[in-house]
Amino acid sequence: MEITDTGILCSGIKEGKLGLALAKCSGNVAGLFTKNSIKAAPVRICEENIADGKIEGLIVNSGNANAFTGEKGLEDAMEMCKIAAELLKCNTKDIAIASTGVIGRKLDMEWIRKKAVEVYHDLGNSKQHADKFGKAIMTTDKFLKKAHSEKAKISAVAKGAGMIAPNLATMLCFIFTTAKFDSGELYEMLKTAAENSFNRLTVDGDTSTNDTVLLISTCKDKVDRDMFSEELTKVCRSLAYQIARDGEGATRVFTVRVMGAEDDEIAARIAKAVASSLLVKTAIFGRDPNWGRIVAAVGYTANVDEKISISFLANSEVTLVDRGIILGNEEKAKKLMEENEEFEILIDLHRGTGEGFAIGCDLSHDYVKLNSAYTT
Amino acid sequence: MEITDTGILCSGIKEGKLGLALAKCSGNVAGLFTKNSIKAAPVRICEENIADGKIEGLIVNSGNANAFTGEKGLEDAMEMCKIAAELLKCNTKDIAIASTGVIGRKLDMEWIRKKAVEVYHDLGNSKQHADKFGKAIMTTDKFLKKAHSEKAKISAVAKGAGMIAPNLATMLCFIFTTAKFDSGELYEMLKTAAENSFNRLTVDGDTSTNDTVLLISTCKDKVDRDMFSEELTKVCRSLAYQIARDGEGATRVFTVRVMGAEDDEIAARIAKAVASSLLVKTAIFGRDPNWGRIVAAVGYTANVDEKISISFLANSEVTLVDRGIILGNEEKAKKLMEENEEFEILIDLHRGTGEGFAIGCDLSHDYVKLNSAYTT
Repeated sequence: MEITDTGILCSGIKEGKLGLALAKCSGNVAGLFTKNSIKAAPVRICEENIADGKIEGLIVNSGNANAFTGEKGLEDAMEMCKIAAELLKCNTKDIAIASTGVIGRKLDMEWIRKKAVEVYHDLGNSKQHADKFGKAIMTTDKFLKKAHSEKAKISAVAKGAGMIAPNLATMLCFIFTTAKFDSGELYEMLKTAAENSFNRLTVDGDTSTNDTVLLISTCKDKVDRDMFSEELTKVCRSLAYQIARDGEGATRVFTVRVMGAEDDEIAARIAKAVASSLLVKTAIFGRDPNWGRIVAAVGYTANVDEKISISFLANSEVTLVDRGIILGNEEKAKKLMEENEEFEILIDLHRGTGEGFAIGCDLSHDYVKLNSAYTT
Repeated sequence: MEITDTGILCSGIKEGKLGLALAKCSGNVAGLFTKNSIKAAPVRICEENIADGKIEGLIVNSGNANAFTGEKGLEDAMEMCKIAAELLKCNTKDIAIASTGVIGRKLDMEWIRKKAVEVYHDLGNSKQHADKFGKAIMTTDKFLKKAHSEKAKISAVAKGAGMIAPNLATMLCFIFTTAKFDSGELYEMLKTAAENSFNRLTVDGDTSTNDTVLLISTCKDKVDRDMFSEELTKVCRSLAYQIARDGEGATRVFTVRVMGAEDDEIAARIAKAVASSLLVKTAIFGRDPNWGRIVAAVGYTANVDEKISISFLANSEVTLVDRGIILGNEEKAKKLMEENEEFEILIDLHRGTGEGFAIGCDLSHDYVKLNSAYTT
């Protein structure tokens, strides 16, 4: 199921590092934005424009984040909305906008104006149109992240992995659906879904200036709310895993699941610390089930004791430490890590009923290569 | 000035990855220990033994951290103290102890007992003895970190860089002085010194299970307190820089100085976030004055606006951003990074009078190589 199967029209264009994408999508909208206090201009304008929950169109550019660009940046973002609104014949305030790319450079508004007209004349609802839209929003992505739910009538695309790329901002995610919900309902369900997917993802811990997730409904179908909410979370979870898999240089994606904590908040904090630990990330790149580094990361995050259990799970389950007793199963765990591109690290603190999880990827030579080779 | 010039006797032995060091050091003591909640056995025993501020001797082993070793680990640490006490003919409770090395392995107590006797018979006060002590406490260190103050009569050695090594714990630091202060005074001055040195250091963000800093006074000389305190901070600062320089694979050491924040706490938090950011660390390895990544790290740490100034300082000063205005001095800053192994990144938020700093090192290919190549 492509994004165009939800009744939207779209297209896009990519020239070198620059891209422009346009969508005609009449309906309700809800959005989540970066928590970075230095918000890019398009984020600020988009937040304003979708505040009434209504949308007519979406304009996205790649290659330039329009971030740290001052007043001129805000003017340019507003101008982009105006360009889209004139083409789509709607109110400027009904245009959603997103940008991704280099920070601190002025937009080439001439290029954007020209390309917007071209893309507008190419709008359509075929798979090819969806592909063009997807291609136009990507930056250093190795592939476009896509997920859908037939029964909840959701189709979504995403790009990026936090601030994975050299000086580039951004995770962008556009979720389209025909399921009829008002914008308040969409917002609630999107928040829950993001909390259990994107917000659990840690690639390098950096939060970009441009992160944007939009949920857009063309309101054509009646769909059960609980089912929709569940499917939406699944779609977002799938995208989060794909983003981790495309984390720069990543060779393994893993979930850290913590149970037995005093409460859920502590469990989530520990899971995130373990998934973010450079020593854990490099050990996983080396296929080393280095539970000592896991123990250390748990210990510097929260108040725990040695009665911890640690297991690795994929096609099989290997317990390394059982309530503080070291079982000596390193070879088995190493084999599991070699054979599975995705696995879970399960940590049981045996202290309470708190649970939480985080999604991470390993840290490879290529991460350093990609992120150091670039010159501003 | 060597540690033996403070009147202590010491020696050490290194066999393969295992080391044992002993010091006879009668006097007052104060210590700071890891904040990791999973504290190694020697840390817990040392905290207890120095609680009365008195010390007669110090025993340190390397190659095995005696961490995550349960009750047996505590027994072994106590046994180590007993071995040292019997040799040095003092109370077991007057022995300070530290361990560094692999987590989760039982100590080879036979080896320790045997070597302790050998080292004891070799105790002395020459430079060679100080060298043997230093060599015995190192693990993957490329060099022993040393610093001293002639006028405050301080001589110190340190090893490690947080959890820089594969599955190895620990920064250990032993500071000896002849300056007469009671243990409460020593503690206060050590806390201040550590707060402005070791606690500002971020190599990979991981805090080990074994980190230990001891300040030991043989109480032979009267020294001005203010001068001593100042010199102690300088000594610790020097050691912290040396540890950063020896951070695995590090090619550059940098200080992030933040000024103009709402308060000191926010400034310190921002400095630490910038110094810890993987994207900033890899950019520095690539000699890329990537202020966009700095801005992003500032923005996800605290509430700021675009009116930031960012400069790089070493033999010269290069301002990249002045109150939000991008000056385009990237080439000059790049040259500064190429020419100086140490430099400062100065960030002025222009919001208040809060100041803070952090010390970091870059993230190189070698960091990943060293930390992934090891198998448990």
